[in-house]
Amino acid sequence: MTRSWVPGADESLFGLDNLPYGVFSRPGEPPRVGVRVGDHVLDLAPVLHDEVFAAPSLNPFLARGRTAWQGTRARLRTLLADGRVRDRAADGPTDEGSSGSAGNRAAVEPHLIPLDQVTMHLPVEVADYVDFYASLEHASNLGRIFRPDEEPLKPNWRHLPVGYHGRAGTVVVSGTPIRRPCGQRMPGPSFGPSARLDIEAELGFVVGAPTRLGDRAGAFEDHVFGVTLLNDWSARDIQAWEYVPLGPFLGKSFATSVSPWITPLEALHGARVAGREQDPAPMDYLRRDAPWGLDLTLRVELNGETISTPSYRDMYWTPDQMLAHMTVNGASLRTGDLFASGTISSEGAFGSLIEVTWNGAEPIKLADGTTRAFLEDGDTVTISAVAPGGIGLGEVTGRITPAT
Amino acid sequence: MTRSWVPGADESLFGLDNLPYGVFSRPGEPPRVGVRVGDHVLDLAPVLHDEVFAAPSLNPFLARGRTAWQGTRARLRTLLADGRVRDRAADGPTDEGSSGSAGNRAAVEPHLIPLDQVTMHLPVEVADYVDFYASLEHASNLGRIFRPDEEPLKPNWRHLPVGYHGRAGTVVVSGTPIRRPCGQRMPGPSFGPSARLDIEAELGFVVGAPTRLGDRAGAFEDHVFGVTLLNDWSARDIQAWEYVPLGPFLGKSFATSVSPWITPLEALHGARVAGREQDPAPMDYLRRDAPWGLDLTLRVELNGETISTPSYRDMYWTPDQMLAHMTVNGASLRTGDLFASGTISSEGAFGSLIEVTWNGAEPIKLADGTTRAFLEDGDTVTISAVAPGGIGLGEVTGRITPAT
Repeated sequence: MTRSWVPGADESLFGLDNLPYGVFSRPGEPPRVGVRVGDHVLDLAPVLHDEVFAAPSLNPFLARGRTAWQGTRARLRTLLADGRVRDRAADGPTDEGSSGSAGNRAAVEPHLIPLDQVTMHLPVEVADYVDFYASLEHASNLGRIFRPDEEPLKPNWRHLPVGYHGRAGTVVVSGTPIRRPCGQRMPGPSFGPSARLDIEAELGFVVGAPTRLGDRAGAFEDHVFGVTLLNDWSARDIQAWEYVPLGPFLGKSFATSVSPWITPLEALHGARVAGREQDPAPMDYLRRDAPWGLDLTLRVELNGETISTPSYRDMYWTPDQMLAHMTVNGASLRTGDLFASGTISSEGAFGSLIEVTWNGAEPIKLADGTTRAFLEDGDTVTISAVAPGGIGLGEVTGRITPAT
Repeated sequence: MTRSWVPGADESLFGLDNLPYGVFSRPGEPPRVGVRVGDHVLDLAPVLHDEVFAAPSLNPFLARGRTAWQGTRARLRTLLADGRVRDRAADGPTDEGSSGSAGNRAAVEPHLIPLDQVTMHLPVEVADYVDFYASLEHASNLGRIFRPDEEPLKPNWRHLPVGYHGRAGTVVVSGTPIRRPCGQRMPGPSFGPSARLDIEAELGFVVGAPTRLGDRAGAFEDHVFGVTLLNDWSARDIQAWEYVPLGPFLGKSFATSVSPWITPLEALHGARVAGREQDPAPMDYLRRDAPWGLDLTLRVELNGETISTPSYRDMYWTPDQMLAHMTVNGASLRTGDLFASGTISSEGAFGSLIEVTWNGAEPIKLADGTTRAFLEDGDTVTISAVAPGGIGLGEVTGRITPAT
């Protein structure tokens, strides 16, 4: 671990090996791009003398591509590194007054802002939003619940990463209140507020470098900038009625929450794993060229109580395969495209309430003595995740407000 | 009909009662907003002295809302009207030299550009793209073809306008070549170029005025600016394999073509009809408050031969119902949202080849002696539409290029 001079950074989940990007504002000032270090956000535009970071979203920076992402990250690590430690390690005398690191600190420190003094915004202007369905456990469980008389997995599931387009315009930043949606519900159909409001704990992958219409995407790391936490709120009673034959629509489109922080792929180097073995072997265009499974553990909290800790490690379809699939037909990528893993459920640890409570049949008992089959008004759900080496993905949280 | 001084306008489908908007450019100049009059495009920014029309998309103008749309249209009709005719009708002497209309013509005429001197661009920066499935004939036919052993209509179909999100980033302007997509196909699955490439003739509705997250949309005409022609290219063999349970994805996402012209709702006043009777009566939130069925006749041409002339008049779900449905869960609208009708098939006149050729079993015979079950490389499909009173919606065309 490279140590930082920023107070508290080394002991946090947001040390120099992480450095996630977000968009923040101070009261009365416009939103702009920052990087999280410990419990501070670094205001990048004045530190790096680059107007791309004065934009109200990460998109212009993401559009520059991988070489620029790498260069900026390397520069930030230099600026934030504790030079004294390195100097000592080099076995020479230290001279704070003249060393580059001390000069860095003097120049940078005025632009470190405590997180409690800023408002975080949606970090990316979302272009297209695609949601996959990549967990074998989740797809099997949902199949058993929604279609009890059939094989839980559809015949296509092991051949391709099943996915669909969601509503990009209702992707909101963590902390945005989630209004309970109304709609046509099962049983019935009847009209009214959803009585089966659920979560889906997911990872979201943010595309930086675009492709042209008709081309396929190249290497995963050349296009995908980083990873965020995502909660794909789901009204199960609306979804169950509407979803045949064209898929989920209003049961999902009312809101999708994301963490304010995008962790660069580079920060997750130590989390990379081979990905689950696949049977049958995937077609050539879906063959894994590099390990893009990620050893991340999520935590799902309901009103502050941990109700599940699913692992991303053993997801059946890895994100490089999702990217290859999404573009194999020549569909172009745009900067700001967001694609999500689908609910992350692992052996015995589920990323949705419909699985945790088995469609409501086995409600959760909470410490306050109440039970939950699905979400009630006033409930707060918070999803967080940690990678090996103490890399935090931050959290995505939301509180349910009553239907109107 | 109000007559225009623009040569040829009154005899065309683009007279003063139409005035569709688009985005054009001349060689070496940036794209900007224009209105079509006959075979000319009027360059709006210099004529109206308004920089909103110097933008490369209609979005900034659309965001101004209905009162602005109405005001601009009224002003354009005044500027383009043939004052001499009105003066004669008023039974008074004409005096071109001093009349307002002659002054209008002198000021406006330099900004009328023949269409063959401009390139047309995508008129709208598409925010979210939603595709519905609103034709009873089409949904029934597809059900019979894709699921021959079941009831053709799913139980939800008569209760709500079934729809799904498509890929906004691959909405392209008419004339863009359409590359044949590759993917996992049925039968099989096997990998390769789609062998069952199809069209879907549709209307697209363009949202101007947005809503806030959590709110429902108000009156249809307060949010929707206008109508365009849309071809939702579809690879049936990819779609048939992938679409369960989350709906169409790669079978549709490679390209969706739209006309360069957006006809304002105001221009379609004379086309409005009550809409098809619905049984069961729709729920309250889907009740029609005003007639938003549209008496439009489409023409589908394959390599110049007319193969179908479906009517929009009897579509089961009307676009006001689609808008109400899409936002009943609180999903917000953005300026530039595009929602489409789904394939327009009417009694005996179909908007897709899979229906025309009944899944390829009854190929079309073309005048050159060849037959078509689905599209071949080099084929060109052109969809046009006309409303009562000689209002043209222009055309959306595309030529198939080979897979790579």
